[in-house]
Amino acid sequence: MNEPTTHDDIWSALQDLRARRPLVHNITNYVAMSVSANVLLALGASPAMVHAAEEVEDFVGISDALCINIGTLSPPWVEAMGKAAARANALGKPWVLDPVGCGATAYRTRVSEELAALRPAVIRANAGEVQSLAGARAGTTKGVDSLAGADAATAAAAEALSRRTGAVVAATGATDYVADGKTRVAVEGGDALMPLSTALGCALSAVVAAFTAVRSPRQAAIAALSVYGAAGAVAARNCRGPGHLPAELCDALYRMDRDTLQREVRFSA
Amino acid sequence: MNEPTTHDDIWSALQDLRARRPLVHNITNYVAMSVSANVLLALGASPAMVHAAEEVEDFVGISDALCINIGTLSPPWVEAMGKAAARANALGKPWVLDPVGCGATAYRTRVSEELAALRPAVIRANAGEVQSLAGARAGTTKGVDSLAGADAATAAAAEALSRRTGAVVAATGATDYVADGKTRVAVEGGDALMPLSTALGCALSAVVAAFTAVRSPRQAAIAALSVYGAAGAVAARNCRGPGHLPAELCDALYRMDRDTLQREVRFSA
Amino acid sequence: MNEPTTHDDIWSALQDLRARRPLVHNITNYVAMSVSANVLLALGASPAMVHAAEEVEDFVGISDALCINIGTLSPPWVEAMGKAAARANALGKPWVLDPVGCGATAYRTRVSEELAALRPAVIRANAGEVQSLAGARAGTTKGVDSLAGADAATAAAAEALSRRTGAVVAATGATDYVADGKTRVAVEGGDALMPLSTALGCALSAVVAAFTAVRSPRQAAIAALSVYGAAGAVAARNCRGPGHLPAELCDALYRMDRDTLQREVRFSA
Repeated sequence: MNEPTTHDDIWSALQDLRARRPLVHNITNYVAMSVSANVLLALGASPAMVHAAEEVEDFVGISDALCINIGTLSPPWVEAMGKAAARANALGKPWVLDPVGCGATAYRTRVSEELAALRPAVIRANAGEVQSLAGARAGTTKGVDSLAGADAATAAAAEALSRRTGAVVAATGATDYVADGKTRVAVEGGDALMPLSTALGCALSAVVAAFTAVRSPRQAAIAALSVYGAAGAVAARNCRGPGHLPAELCDALYRMDRDTLQREVRFSA
Repeated sequence: MNEPTTHDDIWSALQDLRARRPLVHNITNYVAMSVSANVLLALGASPAMVHAAEEVEDFVGISDALCINIGTLSPPWVEAMGKAAARANALGKPWVLDPVGCGATAYRTRVSEELAALRPAVIRANAGEVQSLAGARAGTTKGVDSLAGADAATAAAAEALSRRTGAVVAATGATDYVADGKTRVAVEGGDALMPLSTALGCALSAVVAAFTAVRSPRQAAIAALSVYGAAGAVAARNCRGPGHLPAELCDALYRMDRDTLQREVRFSA
Repeated sequence: MNEPTTHDDIWSALQDLRARRPLVHNITNYVAMSVSANVLLALGASPAMVHAAEEVEDFVGISDALCINIGTLSPPWVEAMGKAAARANALGKPWVLDPVGCGATAYRTRVSEELAALRPAVIRANAGEVQSLAGARAGTTKGVDSLAGADAATAAAAEALSRRTGAVVAATGATDYVADGKTRVAVEGGDALMPLSTALGCALSAVVAAFTAVRSPRQAAIAALSVYGAAGAVAARNCRGPGHLPAELCDALYRMDRDTLQREVRFSA
């Protein structure tokens, strides 16, 4: 049963997020840290980057949501990711997994699978990563850039991965898909320039985490993709290339309003 | 005795810094590295990011000042921080401590206290961190964002922390306070947009370090807060949101002149 | 014998790079990661940052070129650098070395020398680093900023380093030199603002690596310096300071065309 999503739902979620100003704990990759923090601040959340095994569990305790991104993983970080995810589960706090480059190396695929088994609320990934993690086609990811179109195969893989893990799966590409095993929504927004600016997908995962502090995982994923896609579309129109896109994206998030959402985002079940 | 500070003092310090081009050794967090380096370059200093225990002592030896920021701390980095601070003390070189998130976790508070005991020339922190490190109210920091206003309580905590550690304490917020145990100066500048761009406080700590190469710790802190606040105010007027603020801040630092300082900064004892 | 280089050669190399979209594996420093990734994306390459010893060899296997930059080195990273370089050699894949700060500390110099012995295709460095690694004057590098002019001494050191290591050496400064032991080309472009924005030299090393996927090491170095210098010159004209330079540089790379190359770059043998 597809619960319909409206622009009013998205706008309401963003207003709640801005009022709540959730503290989002990120264990993310080196490339994504600054842009994730800036995107979260512009959105209205409060970011923190904390990865030491000595303190991740304490920090989960004071956070509203957690985002785990394996982009520049290494064993000490993976240990901290596992500890943080387990603590989030113990405290009933939502967490988001971004399995960057799953399928590119055996190490990355194994860590992705181990984390996916720790009950993330949402898995946010590109088409190739979703397909790899869903087992649809192992080992064909080209680094962290997805070659596969965000198409029927992606949507099917997202549904399979959701059924396997219990997580809502947000597979992003030219069209984004949010699948929760029973329902599927397509979200269209953004701009073709976005993949040419590094780590904007990683920052989107942090935005999903922020929304899980104020909505169910499914609604959080849809709201995050919608707000981000709307902001990306606005940002790209102010750019002559990808250089200023992160800054314009932050400005667009900071200034996001009901009319812009209505104009820039389309849903379909 | 409050030694009065004038705009001429600040301008003179900036001119000396630009002429000296001090090499500032940073052991800082992953989020702050790029923006700190860019801010230091725009200011007229020469930044370096060096954290391996194998070389921090050697690097202190060729540097003019050191900035230690615990934002994304972990044990190997904390070890290097201790070594670098000890070497700076041994060589009589000034160093600045930024105890990011002190009070948020037990680990962070303990490391902050250990480093604060190693005789930093200046401690630069937000209100919540200063209060936590001063012992005024432990454990109430919300991540790295301060909830407490930069008000009388902050100023009192800054004075207490300065008396306890011997460091000049620069507590930053809507109004900044520089306390050295005997004197206190308030510096007003900046813009409400600044906390919405990540790590600008961390970069300010690096700016304080740069000024310690050409002025006493107290004068360095006042000069840094003044120049940074003036640049932030100019930068924010060129922005429609926080996105372009770091770039505009660098441009404003690069172009800073006597008139802008006069216009944008106010002191009070 | 100097094989002459023409603007058509450079333009052809860039077109081939954009068509190939090479996957460039970077083991680089924390400061350079984001800007390197953005520069590579704007250029037309596909970047990845992968440093864990557990996966670097696998990742070299799926990459088209490798860039190793020691800017924020520590022992676990150095181990991974050695593994990755050895695997690249075993697979016949080109790799680029950026020995950041060689000469500043004993650790940095030793690691630079060890990596330089592992047969990089190109060594890209500033004048002081080239001179230190060439043995021309040890220990006089001031941090990561070069004091030495990119002059006759630099060119001579580049030639000596090339003969010693077998690598093409790209020594960058106000004028860039590409030496391969037998030939030398000077490339003039860029802007004096570029050294005031952090890690643009590091990002250039990644650009050299991208070009090695489509050209010989010598031609790759010349093409990279030319395209980057042209983009830097265009970018600087859009700036009032260094703040927006990285974004403008990305836009200029993204929009680079034949006429701009012709206008902005000069070669001399």
